[in-house]
Amino acid sequence: MEENDPSRLAAAVFAGERRALARAITLIESSRPDHRDRADALLEMLLPETGRSIRLGVSGSPGVGKSTFIESFGRHVIEAGHRVAVLAVDPSSKRSGGSILGDKTRMEALARDGAAFIRPSPAGSTLGGVARRTREAMLACEAAGFDVVLVETVGVGQSETAVADMVDMFLLLLLPAGGDELQGIKRGIVELADLVLVNKADGELEAQARRTAADYEAAMHLLRPSVPGWTARVQTCSALTGEGIAEAWKAVGAFRRALGGGLEKRRTRQAKAWMWNEIAEGALAAVRRDDALRELAGKLEREVEAGRAAPAAAARRLLARFLAGS
Amino acid sequence: MEENDPSRLAAAVFAGERRALARAITLIESSRPDHRDRADALLEMLLPETGRSIRLGVSGSPGVGKSTFIESFGRHVIEAGHRVAVLAVDPSSKRSGGSILGDKTRMEALARDGAAFIRPSPAGSTLGGVARRTREAMLACEAAGFDVVLVETVGVGQSETAVADMVDMFLLLLLPAGGDELQGIKRGIVELADLVLVNKADGELEAQARRTAADYEAAMHLLRPSVPGWTARVQTCSALTGEGIAEAWKAVGAFRRALGGGLEKRRTRQAKAWMWNEIAEGALAAVRRDDALRELAGKLEREVEAGRAAPAAAARRLLARFLAGS
Repeated sequence: MEENDPSRLAAAVFAGERRALARAITLIESSRPDHRDRADALLEMLLPETGRSIRLGVSGSPGVGKSTFIESFGRHVIEAGHRVAVLAVDPSSKRSGGSILGDKTRMEALARDGAAFIRPSPAGSTLGGVARRTREAMLACEAAGFDVVLVETVGVGQSETAVADMVDMFLLLLLPAGGDELQGIKRGIVELADLVLVNKADGELEAQARRTAADYEAAMHLLRPSVPGWTARVQTCSALTGEGIAEAWKAVGAFRRALGGGLEKRRTRQAKAWMWNEIAEGALAAVRRDDALRELAGKLEREVEAGRAAPAAAARRLLARFLAGS
Repeated sequence: MEENDPSRLAAAVFAGERRALARAITLIESSRPDHRDRADALLEMLLPETGRSIRLGVSGSPGVGKSTFIESFGRHVIEAGHRVAVLAVDPSSKRSGGSILGDKTRMEALARDGAAFIRPSPAGSTLGGVARRTREAMLACEAAGFDVVLVETVGVGQSETAVADMVDMFLLLLLPAGGDELQGIKRGIVELADLVLVNKADGELEAQARRTAADYEAAMHLLRPSVPGWTARVQTCSALTGEGIAEAWKAVGAFRRALGGGLEKRRTRQAKAWMWNEIAEGALAAVRRDDALRELAGKLEREVEAGRAAPAAAARRLLARFLAGS
């Protein structure tokens, strides 16, 4: 399609045309090989104009109020003069139905704002595939002039790690909860967070929110900082009343200052790791695509599960066939 | 060599001959292709007699007293009637010098005990390679009748995750420390732990050890348990006086009871994941082994680092060459 001609699309994206950005991302998300080639060509053209945004991951259990937070936070950041893109990583997203995340109906006021761009999670059969599409969509948004990108994740499988690997800073939303109440947070997520926000700190829950924040603050002090000079902050907020939202944005600024030149190093490291991840994923996909290999892999898996074959030996058998044949 | 004939070696390992176990592990650690084939044959014979041990990971920063703990804990477990193997994952281990971990001179009394078997970390150019060798050594130890296997790690790179992926339970040793003192623990490790032991809880440091334990106990309550019904325990101990060592072993028993049938499921999951990890690692190794591909990979890496190439597109180029050529 002419409208998918990479140079024209790139020019339109640079010009800030929203429809062009949406088409670019649709192209990026497509699995068709011809679309894949065009998307690669497009991204090559967009690349020099990427990187100029603040990349934030936003996670939290269902019910914590992520959409309300993103709407409130997004509008505050727009009022501060920025243009905000909202993306999502949700491997459970179905092609036809779209995802709950990035659902515009849950962020109506933000969706209507010309300075915001909201996109549901791409569909994909693997987390790696979804994450790759979201990362490339992020690059497209940056090229279109969005200088704050939020990537939302709901905590299915290993989505948080995938999102943490593509952003500068990871925000975790929590509910005000009594000491013994589980937050339903997956193990390992708390330690990923650079900023913890106890949401719904309003009305009857305000005191409890502060107690929860104090508990997590004590806990975060025990964890080694991922950035020298930055201990993960814990704050309260109410996406409903707007309380604490400005402070959350200030914390983002403080983190970036603490990170300093480390930001570029982090992004370079992430980009390199992404490349090798894609190579490994691509190799595995090639194994799964080949009928004979897929059959052998299934058989070996069953033998490994039954304790009849040592995992590394099974892997070597499959690899030998893979490297010899394809 | 005749002594490396798989069936004879397997028989000797089953008979509990220590030298045979050591030779078996040396064979497993070898990178020579002919040794590799024998090792695979050996492991296939040993496999039916593996799995009958309690697999524990032990981690903590340098200086926390891991060797003293392992010695004290190991001797207690032996007194309780078990046979203990101590292995290690240390990717910085050099082939000639051996590793600091699993250094018998640091666990002399244990090393002298006939019911114990201590082996330094294998050398290896990648963490994956070291971890694979250690996992296979663990299987050999189990076949030889060792029913408690400790896998030590010192926290270089991602060793902890690799060890957590091969054991049933992960023990983290800490120092008694003031609230603001960093433990030097890598981010993400605390949430891996099923049991946290604040060591050196003796003499002047005893009160501080209890305070540290209380701090971490509060923190662990905020983290989602990886096993239903089990919140990571935090206890103090003194490997020097022996205080708390019996309690640590009791905690291991309590964890296994909480895990119940989940243990088999966990191990099956680990074995399957290990197989796919090895396949991915093997594919990457094949890329790096090929001169032309290695050169292209280096060039693409540099372009990705410089922001001149999109990571996924770079990966696709390399993959296309890899899948076409080899």
